[in-house]
Amino acid sequence: MASETKLAGNPPGEALLAKFAAIVGEKYAIREPTDMASYLTELRGLYTGIAAIVLRPGSTQEVSEILELANEAGTAIVPQGGNTGLVGGQIPFNGGDEVILSLSRLNRVRNIDPGSNTMTVDAGVVLEQARAAADEVDRLFPLSLPSEGSCQIGGNLSTNAGGAAVLAYGNARELVLGLEVVLADGRIWDGLRSLRKDNTGYDLKNLFIGAEGTLGIITGAVLKLFPKPEAKATGFAGLASVGNIGKLFDIARRIGGHSLTSFEFVPRIGIDYVLRHGDQIRDPLSQAHDWYALVELSGQDSGGGPAELIEAILGEALEAEIVDDAAIAASLGQADDFWRLRELLSEVQGHEGGSIKHDVSVPIAAIPEFIERASKTVTGMIEGARPVPFGHYGDGNIHYNVSQPVGADKEAFIARWDEVNAAVHAIVTEFNGSISAEHGIGRMKRDLLPGVKSEVELDLMRAIRRTLDPNAILNPGKVV
Amino acid sequence: MASETKLAGNPPGEALLAKFAAIVGEKYAIREPTDMASYLTELRGLYTGIAAIVLRPGSTQEVSEILELANEAGTAIVPQGGNTGLVGGQIPFNGGDEVILSLSRLNRVRNIDPGSNTMTVDAGVVLEQARAAADEVDRLFPLSLPSEGSCQIGGNLSTNAGGAAVLAYGNARELVLGLEVVLADGRIWDGLRSLRKDNTGYDLKNLFIGAEGTLGIITGAVLKLFPKPEAKATGFAGLASVGNIGKLFDIARRIGGHSLTSFEFVPRIGIDYVLRHGDQIRDPLSQAHDWYALVELSGQDSGGGPAELIEAILGEALEAEIVDDAAIAASLGQADDFWRLRELLSEVQGHEGGSIKHDVSVPIAAIPEFIERASKTVTGMIEGARPVPFGHYGDGNIHYNVSQPVGADKEAFIARWDEVNAAVHAIVTEFNGSISAEHGIGRMKRDLLPGVKSEVELDLMRAIRRTLDPNAILNPGKVV
Repeated sequence: MASETKLAGNPPGEALLAKFAAIVGEKYAIREPTDMASYLTELRGLYTGIAAIVLRPGSTQEVSEILELANEAGTAIVPQGGNTGLVGGQIPFNGGDEVILSLSRLNRVRNIDPGSNTMTVDAGVVLEQARAAADEVDRLFPLSLPSEGSCQIGGNLSTNAGGAAVLAYGNARELVLGLEVVLADGRIWDGLRSLRKDNTGYDLKNLFIGAEGTLGIITGAVLKLFPKPEAKATGFAGLASVGNIGKLFDIARRIGGHSLTSFEFVPRIGIDYVLRHGDQIRDPLSQAHDWYALVELSGQDSGGGPAELIEAILGEALEAEIVDDAAIAASLGQADDFWRLRELLSEVQGHEGGSIKHDVSVPIAAIPEFIERASKTVTGMIEGARPVPFGHYGDGNIHYNVSQPVGADKEAFIARWDEVNAAVHAIVTEFNGSISAEHGIGRMKRDLLPGVKSEVELDLMRAIRRTLDPNAILNPGKVV
Repeated sequence: MASETKLAGNPPGEALLAKFAAIVGEKYAIREPTDMASYLTELRGLYTGIAAIVLRPGSTQEVSEILELANEAGTAIVPQGGNTGLVGGQIPFNGGDEVILSLSRLNRVRNIDPGSNTMTVDAGVVLEQARAAADEVDRLFPLSLPSEGSCQIGGNLSTNAGGAAVLAYGNARELVLGLEVVLADGRIWDGLRSLRKDNTGYDLKNLFIGAEGTLGIITGAVLKLFPKPEAKATGFAGLASVGNIGKLFDIARRIGGHSLTSFEFVPRIGIDYVLRHGDQIRDPLSQAHDWYALVELSGQDSGGGPAELIEAILGEALEAEIVDDAAIAASLGQADDFWRLRELLSEVQGHEGGSIKHDVSVPIAAIPEFIERASKTVTGMIEGARPVPFGHYGDGNIHYNVSQPVGADKEAFIARWDEVNAAVHAIVTEFNGSISAEHGIGRMKRDLLPGVKSEVELDLMRAIRRTLDPNAILNPGKVV
């Protein structure tokens, strides 16, 4: 992991802390270590920090006043949403100089306009809540993550969250029409617009989206809504090679078009893990296959739609011997069962010992070659290591995880994390891929950035950061 | 129109011009007034300028050398693509100090990867050429504009072009995965990546997209490709009110879902214009209606798809008396006829005398009220003025055009352009809409920007512009 850095912020003294507390009210200024604990560590225990105080503002205006004060005093601010981030971007360092600014109390759905297909929310609205609000007016907000019961919209946007629906709906970035952002000096940028076409100046919102709280603090957003699909069809296919998964994807894309909403893949070893450790899981196919694809289409009922499309897709693939066997879910319950085979995989890897993880993407056509080379490299480095590559095939995003050899010492395996990461990332870079497809840079991958970005790009990023945050108070030590 | 501004650039002397010419070669350095003419004026004759020289580089490297030299010397550069822009952003001012940098010779399709659904192009590739290259590998590049025979990808991206396919595919911004940009100081940013998921740092590409050549010069792009729809269904409906168009849109969106690819609207007066001045046009419906909607769905053949969807949509709308009459195209030829009713409208307005134009958008649900208020205001200002509102209903983008009163003096009417614009824009702003939905700011709307943007936003834009172009050489006087 990246080494701890003591950053050059100004440690806030008592008088300053009292001023911060006065902005939010004592009730929402947290200083007791036990009360602060949950803000100071993230869910996997990889990063734990210390903060001078946790502030829980109740309005955009309070966020503005906090930043204005912090900017004058040179106090580092760590914005935090649902604290579900996977690269440590929301956790303070160990110096105790930083102030955590929690967005949790900004949790109102401000406005829903189903006629315009837009919804305006506070940044602290939990993703599940946003999805429910859309559902109530017969709309879909398609962003969907495993952590949706906890993660917040502000965090989703700050990390440009992905998830399983990217294939049809895009990343978080593509679901936003406008933002409200508090800048480093406390000024509020009201960019809340709900227009699908607006060419009046620079696209500032996309600077803040994915910037992980380093360029400004998102306090509100206008989100796009979509029609709720009336029908869904889910298929589960067994294949002999990754190359065949690619060919199935081509067929699914061609026949399914706009209606193809998910295309996931899992290796046999992953199915074995789930069958071994999952609860009441059964293999939908009668024989074992080396690879599996989960294909889902959604759309409207008229004209058969998804049901006819999945049959056409799998029919063509079976005939061409691209797919060796396939099952089509006969009910929503059975569709859920197929999805569990894919979704439980993240959980159950822990039962197989240590797992070294990667969150990478490569151009889709390069997936087979990437998996082959990465697995050859990794098993060459660690005899008996068990690659478990799975994920969002249609986005080129592979959770390339490596389980320890059976019976090996877990700690010794995990100790080789950085070494394995470096080898796999080198291959990713050769394919012009990304070493962080979904999770962002945060603290975890900050030191890796110079290895994958040109000096020009790093320089541009730093110049923009200096322009927007000249006193370097916004989440220092994160990203770049 | 905005008054001419003499800008503070350094007029390039002979020695400097010779250096510029040496970069591209004498053959591609244009100094003869007759040869320069076509670069100096735009297609409607609204803006004509003078330039010191027109340079036609043949590579990204040459563009880089030009900018490096210009940055050192303080020479203003006006980037130009197909010269089809509608707000004067590509035309130099009258001082003669500026250098036009034409991207036209950078016209190679660098790479197509149908498996990954991406295509890498030079910025000077003509849009029609890009679409044809995608078609050849059985893919769709969906950006489609009336000017596609001349406009270039670089210009499309620099203005975040829209067009008729935005409803299903998004604006130009949403069709780009990566960019190659030459910065003001000549450094080349290679951001050409073809990944759909990549969260390694700030989203720099979206700064340059829509920046109209003021933050950097786009020299290459990675574009998204899509499956080619196999089937299309087009309907033409007659309705009694704009409110009913909105209700039809809701039905179309709900039933059509992802398959709804266009939703346009036209007023009766527009149909009259087209019937009066168009060639071999006939009204598809037997009676006149106050308003019309053109609805198109596309998708795959399996399961009926578009054909069944359009019947379901129009069937429900007729039953609910939202639509009074409708025709479904029985052939591609008939679909084309429906589209001509919509597309010819832009051309034929000229036959009805002066036309004062607006390119605005409002939230979709506000369209009926906006049209009502704007028309009341405009006819109140100019008795007998004939509003002709039409456009992309599904994007909230209305080409709100106003024809002169029959028999009125055309020049006197056109002389009131700014006055009418100001009144209509004020209403747009009340609805939190955009005064430039598609065409950008350029020179035409630069003075209007402070009226519709907060001081914070203007300040952010200027700060970013200063950071990326400290010597103010990139298209000065445009945008902000």
